Amino acid sequence: MPSQSKPDPSNSLVESLSLEPTASGSLSGLSFTVKDNIDIAGHKTSCGSPAWRDQHLTPKHNALCVDQVLAAGARCVGKAVADEFTYSLAGENQFFGTPRNAKAPDRIPGGSSSGSAASVANGIADFSIGTDSGGSIRVPASFCGVWGMRPSLHRISEAGVLPFTPSVSTVGILAARMDTLDKAIRVLLRRSKRPVAPLRRILVLADAMEICDATVRIAAERALERIAHRTGIVPELIRFAQIVGRDIPLSACNENALRDLQTMEFQNTVGNWIENNKPHTGTDFSKAYENVRGFDRISALASLDRCERIFEELNDFLSSGTVICFPTAPFIAPFKNSLNTEESVGNFYGRTMAITAFSGIGRLPEISAPLLTVEGCPVGLSIAAGHYQDEFLLGAVEEMLG
Amino acid sequence: MPSQSKPDPSNSLVESLSLEPTASGSLSGLSFTVKDNIDIAGHKTSCGSPAWRDQHLTPKHNALCVDQVLAAGARCVGKAVADEFTYSLAGENQFFGTPRNAKAPDRIPGGSSSGSAASVANGIADFSIGTDSGGSIRVPASFCGVWGMRPSLHRISEAGVLPFTPSVSTVGILAARMDTLDKAIRVLLRRSKRPVAPLRRILVLADAMEICDATVRIAAERALERIAHRTGIVPELIRFAQIVGRDIPLSACNENALRDLQTMEFQNTVGNWIENNKPHTGTDFSKAYENVRGFDRISALASLDRCERIFEELNDFLSSGTVICFPTAPFIAPFKNSLNTEESVGNFYGRTMAITAFSGIGRLPEISAPLLTVEGCPVGLSIAAGHYQDEFLLGAVEEMLG
Repeated sequence: MPSQSKPDPSNSLVESLSLEPTASGSLSGLSFTVKDNIDIAGHKTSCGSPAWRDQHLTPKHNALCVDQVLAAGARCVGKAVADEFTYSLAGENQFFGTPRNAKAPDRIPGGSSSGSAASVANGIADFSIGTDSGGSIRVPASFCGVWGMRPSLHRISEAGVLPFTPSVSTVGILAARMDTLDKAIRVLLRRSKRPVAPLRRILVLADAMEICDATVRIAAERALERIAHRTGIVPELIRFAQIVGRDIPLSACNENALRDLQTMEFQNTVGNWIENNKPHTGTDFSKAYENVRGFDRISALASLDRCERIFEELNDFLSSGTVICFPTAPFIAPFKNSLNTEESVGNFYGRTMAITAFSGIGRLPEISAPLLTVEGCPVGLSIAAGHYQDEFLLGAVEEMLG
Repeated sequence: MPSQSKPDPSNSLVESLSLEPTASGSLSGLSFTVKDNIDIAGHKTSCGSPAWRDQHLTPKHNALCVDQVLAAGARCVGKAVADEFTYSLAGENQFFGTPRNAKAPDRIPGGSSSGSAASVANGIADFSIGTDSGGSIRVPASFCGVWGMRPSLHRISEAGVLPFTPSVSTVGILAARMDTLDKAIRVLLRRSKRPVAPLRRILVLADAMEICDATVRIAAERALERIAHRTGIVPELIRFAQIVGRDIPLSACNENALRDLQTMEFQNTVGNWIENNKPHTGTDFSKAYENVRGFDRISALASLDRCERIFEELNDFLSSGTVICFPTAPFIAPFKNSLNTEESVGNFYGRTMAITAFSGIGRLPEISAPLLTVEGCPVGLSIAAGHYQDEFLLGAVEEMLG
């Protein structure tokens, strides 16, 4: 492949590119990178795996989302590093390296859209197209201190994007600034500018706050006070059990529910390819994949029903005009190479996904705003809204933070 | 591959199977077939193309939808013939043959879920899992005189199903009886049995009626009279322009809109594979694919905006309690081998997709009911509802026709 490699000390990029826009538009003058699980014509897609890259042919077409953004005037400057098969929230890829967390260089950038977040935080691009299933846009946005949006499930075309976990995966945007995020995501959402409901109610997910480090919780409370002052709307603390109308904890979104659905779908997509091809995979992925391989899908089918029920309950509750806030991740980015024991990995994923699975199971749009600073490191404050209320959410965030 | 081939004079099946249920449930005692673009563990998936089959490895897992149905007690009896790459509404596969249209044996079965419809109509199975993008469940259901449902976009997991046109493709059910369709689709929808809105309003899409042969229109009007008598609700004729609030024809759903989106997405999925592998393809597909290959995606991007706008307008209009009716296809099944001129192909797809694109662009659930008979051949009457109102639609159809 013709790799126009420029030195990239941040290690955000798999490959430096210069793809000119195909037309001018609302993104003219802006540059972007593309996560390496999204096709760019004439360049191999690795999905974070050299084995996958080597055994797949070169795509002939850009992913539809890439064409949309090029046609709106933006210029593509590179393919961004992704975690191996996008199956991680850490951002430490054994083959492609760990993209530099610009604001906390001794810490992990978060993943799997690690290079997307890093390319934005390191000033290589104005925005990046990433993907998010279990938190793969939101977590690196939180750890790297950039804006990130996971839109409603299936609002954006996934043509030309690695099929990963079809019932959960979304295409979204990471950006250095709110106005850039807003412009880029509106191109992908391709929605006419119709009036949306005014912001009436700001909820705060109490269970998520409790999962967080106390320092993160306190920083979030201060940010919410500023939002209250700005909007004149007093945030209301609410428990997950009140939202769904049943006495279940927030972790019910992940455990025996979304996590199982994701595991089953991953077996069908990447897992099927791995079983057939026995590729060389990295140490961390290989360890994680053992659980996928041994997963008993038949006994887990009841998890699908639980997902659907919570989806309904969340969306019945999240009426138009309502947003719900919570820290994007329960802590600042862990130190590099620190996720090296079963306990540290279990703690990292267990606590993080207890929060990120909320929007995953609800198919909700969620924006992570780089509002909090703890021990000098960034953490995001997330704002989510009901399924398909993406444009309302963008307006609400502008009103709350713009 | 271990093919347990039984004689199948209807040519509905690629392969006869006997997969026992993994548990008992609401589908116990029922048998089903699976369209050959949906994975069955240990059996190659052809997607209607011998070249695709030969160049892909054997899946290790069933598609999630297959596991759902097996766990609800149904028994799988075969893999059903599909059109080549599922890119046809005709059901004449040059490699796998034309499944027999049981009720009109000299006519095509319709496609691309041709073997699914035929296996049900010929009594091989009680139901079949198929897929529908541009009409691939609804059209063969209409031509073969069986029930067919395309659910709301992305209500059912597509893990283990060929990624075809991700923004349009759905997994759905064809069945010999309404109660079987209802039971099977509810397993896949995995929705708690919550109360749904009562049926209040029955609309009839005037533009679709006008596209139909006069004989089909008259048969549809008689069926609607019976529905009015049964429900006590007088069907209201409505024009597409009234629904969207703009003076555009029904064909605007397909032309310069959904058809372009599908073509672009097909370029990214199967098209990309074809360009890289140059497989041997059938005459009809090769001809159709020339348009895909030469399609200018950049200038067609505006079609995405048109799709999104109509989607919004349709769903703003189709409030809960409302269904909309129209003939599934504008005519009875054409004779076999009659789609052999540019004119006949253009007429077939142009008129059919002018109707089927309505639910496609609206991401609507639609049920084709085998209610009409014209010249001794079946045609379906379709009943559609708003996006995600699948359970309401099932209840409404029961009330209208049960």
